[in-house]
Formats: sequence, C-alpha cells, structure tokens
Amino acid sequence: MVGLQLRGKTYIAKKLSRYLNWIGINTRVFNLGEYRRQATTAYKNHDFFRMDNMEAMAIRNRCAQDALEDVCNWIENGGEVAVFDATNTTKERRKLIYDWIVRKMGYKLFFVESVCDDPSIVEQNIMEVKVHSPDYQGMNNDDALTDFLQRISHYQDQYEAMDDVKEGHYSFMKIFNTGEKILVHKHEGHIQSRIVYYLMNIHITPRTIYLTRHGETDHNISGRIGGDSDLSGRGRHYAKALAHYIKEQDIPNLRVWTSWLKRTIQTASGIDAPQERWKALNEIDAVKFAARDQSKFSYRYPRGESYEDLVARLEPVIMELERQENVLVIGHQAVLRCLWHTFLDNLQILIVPAPVPGYLDEKFRFANSQ
Amino acid sequence: MVGLQLRGKTYIAKKLSRYLNWIGINTRVFNLGEYRRQATTAYKNHDFFRMDNMEAMAIRNRCAQDALEDVCNWIENGGEVAVFDATNTTKERRKLIYDWIVRKMGYKLFFVESVCDDPSIVEQNIMEVKVHSPDYQGMNNDDALTDFLQRISHYQDQYEAMDDVKEGHYSFMKIFNTGEKILVHKHEGHIQSRIVYYLMNIHITPRTIYLTRHGETDHNISGRIGGDSDLSGRGRHYAKALAHYIKEQDIPNLRVWTSWLKRTIQTASGIDAPQERWKALNEIDAVKFAARDQSKFSYRYPRGESYEDLVARLEPVIMELERQENVLVIGHQAVLRCLWHTFLDNLQILIVPAPVPGYLDEKFRFANSQ
Ligand SMILES: Nc1ncnc2c1ncn2[C@@H]1O[C@H](COP(=O)(O)OP(=O)(O)OP(=O)(O)O)[C@@H](O)[C@H]1O
Ligand SMILES: Nc1ncnc2c1ncn2[C@@H]1O[C@H](COP(=O)(O)OP(=O)(O)OP(=O)(O)O)[C@@H](O)[C@H]1O
Ligand SMILES: [Mg+2]
Ligand SMILES: [Mg+2]
Repeated sequence: MVGLQLRGKTYIAKKLSRYLNWIGINTRVFNLGEYRRQATTAYKNHDFFRMDNMEAMAIRNRCAQDALEDVCNWIENGGEVAVFDATNTTKERRKLIYDWIVRKMGYKLFFVESVCDDPSIVEQNIMEVKVHSPDYQGMNNDDALTDFLQRISHYQDQYEAMDDVKEGHYSFMKIFNTGEKILVHKHEGHIQSRIVYYLMNIHITPRTIYLTRHGETDHNISGRIGGDSDLSGRGRHYAKALAHYIKEQDIPNLRVWTSWLKRTIQTASGIDAPQERWKALNEIDAVKFAARDQSKFSYRYPRGESYEDLVARLEPVIMELERQENVLVIGHQAVLRCLWHTFLDNLQILIVPAPVPGYLDEKFRFANSQ
Repeated sequence: MVGLQLRGKTYIAKKLSRYLNWIGINTRVFNLGEYRRQATTAYKNHDFFRMDNMEAMAIRNRCAQDALEDVCNWIENGGEVAVFDATNTTKERRKLIYDWIVRKMGYKLFFVESVCDDPSIVEQNIMEVKVHSPDYQGMNNDDALTDFLQRISHYQDQYEAMDDVKEGHYSFMKIFNTGEKILVHKHEGHIQSRIVYYLMNIHITPRTIYLTRHGETDHNISGRIGGDSDLSGRGRHYAKALAHYIKEQDIPNLRVWTSWLKRTIQTASGIDAPQERWKALNEIDAVKFAARDQSKFSYRYPRGESYEDLVARLEPVIMELERQENVLVIGHQAVLRCLWHTFLDNLQILIVPAPVPGYLDEKFRFANSQ
C-alpha cells in the first residue's frame, strides 16, 4: 500500500486480503502500525512522526525491516500474497521495498496507492477511525483530532506520489478519491489484474447487506433436502413476517436478490422492492449435497460441487454485491455460508427479531464500514 | 472509441464486441469507415481527410449522424451495447455524442481511448493493416503508406486527447501503448467494469492458440458418453502423434492446458511443455449432456448445464487465454465449441495434418492478429 494516513489503506488491505483468500489465494496483511506499537511501549504524541526525530525514525525503520522480513518468511512458507499495509510515501522507501522484494527475493511487487485530495473525505475518516485508535485511548476527541492532523502533516511534507516516469519500472495502481479515477501501470500476471478489477468495484458508501435463508418448505418438514419445493405454512408465515420487518426498516434503495428456486422467490414475494433472480445463488443440488454430508472432505469428483466450485460461481455475485448499496439476499444455507465468508471481518451481527421463533438461525446483518 | 488512426480501435472494438456477445450481452460494432465508404463512390486520396475540405467534411459529418442514428435504432430494438468505432478525436465530436446519447437518449456512454506515442507500434500497424485496406486497392504499398501518413497528420493536428478535467463528467478509459498503462475515469455499472477488466487482459503480441480434442477413449468405442475413462489404443496413438507434431512445430513458450479428466491428461502426456489442469475445462457431465441432446433447448433445470452456465465457468479460462502467449488446449467437444466462439472473428483455420486420419475433426489453429 502507498498513501497518506486515512486514505483507506487498511480498509483496502483488509478487504483485498479477504477477497483473495476467498478465491483461494493465501493472503495476509502485515500492518506496520502494529509493529510500531509493539516496538514502542506507548504512543505519546505526533512528535514521534516528525521526520527529524532521529530516535523515532530509527525505530520506525527497524519496524519496516522486521515487517518485510516477516513478509518474506511467510511467503517462503507457503504464503501467496502479502499485503504490506504502511504509508510507503517516499520514493526511497519504495525503492528499498523494490530492491528487497523484487531484486533480492525475485517476487512480484504491486503497489496500490490511494490518493485523496478531497478534504471532506479525509476529515470524515479521521472522525470515524482515528479517534478510536489504540494510540488515542484515554485522550479526548478534540485532542486526538489535533494530534492526528499534525501527524498527517509530518507525512504530507515528505509525500511523493507514485510517478509513472521516475518510477516507470514499477507495477502499480492508483485509486483517486475512493475510486473516481483509477490508474494502472504495467500490471503483470492474473492476480494483479484480479486485484485491479476487485478494487475497481468496491466503494465506501455506507450500506447494509442483509442475508436470510428462505422460509421453511414442505421438504424441510419431511426431512428431504434439495429439489424445488414450495414453502410450507410456516414458510409462508415467515415470508409475510420478513416483508413486514423489511417494510418497517424503511431501507433506502433496497434491492432483493433471490436464487431461481421457488422457495426463495416465494419468501421474497411480499417485499416491496426491485427483485433480481440469480441462478448462481441456487443451492448446491441435492444429490451432491447429500454426498457431501456423508463425507465432508472426500473426493466428490466428477459429480460433486466443491467449496472451490461454489466460490467460482459466486464470484460474479460477490463482485456485484460490492458494487451495490443496500441489498437483501434471500438464499440457501451452504451458499449463504460461502457468501458470508467474504464479508466476515467487517460484519456486525445483529439479531433481527425472529418472526418465526426457533426456525431461522441465519439472520445476518452487517455493514460495509468497519 | 477514441483515438488516431491505427491505434487499434477496430481491433479493440471487434474483440470487445465478441467478448460481450459471448457473455450474453447483445453487442454490435458500428464502424464509421464503412459508412464513409458507402457514402462516397471512391476514395481518392488523403485530401478527403483534410479539415479544410468542406465538402468532404459535410459528408463525414453526415456519416457520423447516420451511424449514431443506427446506434439508437438498434438499441431501441433490443441491442444492449453499441460500439461506435470512429476516431472521435475532438472534444466537439465527443460532446455531440454525449449530448445525443446521454442527454437526449438517456443511455450510458463509456469512451475507450487508445493512445499510442510509440512510433514503432504505429508504423508496424500501418504496414500490417492499412496497405491492405479497401481504400488502397490497386495502389502500390509505398504510395499507400505515404498517403496514409498524410491522412494521419490531418487528424493529428486536431487531436484532443480525453481530459479528466475538461471532460470530467464523462465516463472513460484510456489505454496507453497497447496496455502499458490504463486510466479509468468515473466508470459506472458492471458492464463498464467488465469492459475495463477484459481490455486490461488483452494484448497484441502475436501468438497462436491451438485447440484439440482428447484422443479416442474406451467409452467412445462403446458409444457411451461422459465418465472418466482412459484412452483407447487409437487414443494413445493420437497422443503420441500429437506430441510429435507439437515438437516439430517448435513453438516458443508453449503451454499446455487440459481438463481434470484422464482422457485429456493422457492425451497431453507426451508433450514436452509446462502443463496446467483446469477443472473449468471439464466436459459437461454425462447425464446432463445426454439430457441435452434429447431436447436441445428444453428447460434443463435444475440438473442441466446450459450454454450460459458453461460460459460462466469458462470465463476465467478465456481471461487467462487472453493473457497468455502460445497455448495448446486439449479439451472436450462442447467446451471447445464454446471457447471457439469467443475467437471466431479473428481465426485462421489451419488443417493440421491429422495424425489419426478420420478421427479428429477439431483441429483448430488461429492467430491473435486479424
Ligand atoms: N480509497 C479510499 N480513499 C479514502 N478513504 C477511504 C478509501 N477507502 C476507504 N476509505 C475510508 O477510510 C477510512 C479508513 O481509513 P484507514 O484506517 O483504512 O486508513 P489508512 O490509510 O490505513 O490510515 P493510516 O495510515 O492512519 O493507517 C474508512 O473509514 C474508509 O471509509
Ligand atoms: N491498443 C493498441 N494500440 C496500438 N495498436 C494496437 C492496439 N491494439 C491493437 N493494435 C494494433 O493495431 C492494428 C489494428 O489497427 P486498427 O485497424 O484496429 O486501428 P484503428 O484505430 O481502427 O485505425 P483506423 O482509425 O484507421 O480505423 C492491429 O494490427 C493491432 O495489432
Ligand atoms: Mg492503516
Ligand atoms: Mg478502424
């Protein structure tokens, strides 16, 4: 990552890592701030970030070295992508990284810079994030804000944005003002282009994704799984209650997504909002699902659908979910679990009043923000 | 499209349209040059493209109007994406398009500009493409080249690259020097981000993709389809002959892709080149395939895999094929047919000497260039 404070580096690093792990690429974030916090007993104030504070500078350089060493160790031991979450705002620092990671180790290196010249975004970010940082525990909000603005100014003095002439041999992308503009320079390999594609689709507009299973079906009652059965009486009851609940919430621009199977469509039927049907949201089919339950990790080929297959078919759903605002997904157990994993870190579980007590165990709600 | 001559606008427009159609988005290219050639009886020389040639200017504006009218008609009649393949090198022309397409019609508009300041690329493109253009039929190569360079210069005088300040409200992307750098500005909607992703992955390095079916299997002999059977004697013979043929071709940096099924892996076994296995290349499975044959267009849900499903699972294969250089794909009938469609326009069929006469009917070879 490259960028001044509160440009969403940590936000992007976490989302990216979750996404890459989800599609099966072993990814880990190395956050320099955490190394720094471990190295120094306690944060006093912004003085630590002055460029002429030699002692602090030495500590900070040491931390960067440690982090990069850990990055290399981790990759040597089977890691595939390491996201180095630090400001990396000088050419010198980026050269150091390049020399180490590309020249010495022979790995690929892709810089992701977040640039933001809209002061309203930055200020909002400060209020949202920094005053809750461990660095400011026990400090009041105004003092924290003042200190933090000074901390940024120490970096701003030194900030050198990535330059496609002077740093023309690097592979990098720049994200301007949370995605208004994207620049990609000398990307190489399919992982880098996946990264660009994914980061092009995320946004920071606050929104909520609601996940719920369909209501109970006749098959649920008789213990059979799979097929395309109708809702039972209780299932229809749930559909009504859900419609009622959603209406009460009065969610702006809500969209409702279902699978192609009757039980999700029927569950959605009472909700007054634009609806979309996704075949990709269909449940893993019955035969396969039964086989899977008997022996969870056995070789289910050629009939079975593995977790990997599920991820592959859900990928367009995830991409589109990233792009959307408020969405209610009415889905099936295994599919919801899988979707769930991509959003795991930034979720807020909220127990929605269960309209049919004891029946629905998957009522999720989580926000896009951290 | 936006860009001077021979910046690959037509190349990009065609590839993009093929790709979008393949993923199920109804797309058509409207090539302004064709309108111009219809409007004027015969091309004389570059004078036609001088900005102070009023009569010619009027014809050219008329052609642009006609083309845009056709674009709108086509979209009103179910078209989803129209690619307007013209130079569109002035702000004025782009404003005209914007006013018409966005303001008046309410459609989305995404400019794709190809910028190329590497003279070696342009010169090579002239030799490759223009001297074979219908405009230069019967002219000798040197005269055609000279004329064409002058034709470019008429545009170059007027060329205004897209500007993210002055044209800040437009959605657009720029491709620099065939993809060395990509800029995306205010992209909106999932089709635009798919377009960016796809165009990020294409390249113009000449290469060849070879497609072949696996050798004959025991099941082929007994008339059964599907399953995961071994090669028959004739199949193994084919595998040997294929390895021999590929070795003779001496293809630089060849990669071999197979499915996960034994018959493709065995067919590849003698080839001395790096191999990759793609589950996504597996054949539609037997039950489904049989069902399909009985009634090609019937509703095969929930068991069947439709053409759409096949496209969805092959999409990562296609993306990666775009990125690669020389590749030999050893696959299955239905899957190869589907892959085949994405490359249809720019293929050169070449009948490879059939090593097992009469058996293999799908020996394709086609180049990346037009
Ligand atoms: N591309 C972006 N540009 C600006 N802000 C963003 C971007 N992406 C996310 N944000 C917002 O930034 C805030 C989070 O900031 P984050 O902690 O990720 O910044 P940071 O760059 O890691 O800062 P620091 O250098 O202090 O660690 C979030 O509230 C998020 O909404
Ligand atoms: N992004 C690109 N930049 C430059 N050249 C490219 C690019 N993409 C493809 N090409 C090459 O350009 C050549 C094709 O030019 P093409 O006919 O598509 O240009 P054009 O922009 O449509 O020109 P014209 O305005 O004369 O119609 C091909 O040989 C192709 O290899
Ligand atoms: Mg951070
Ligand atoms: Mg053209």
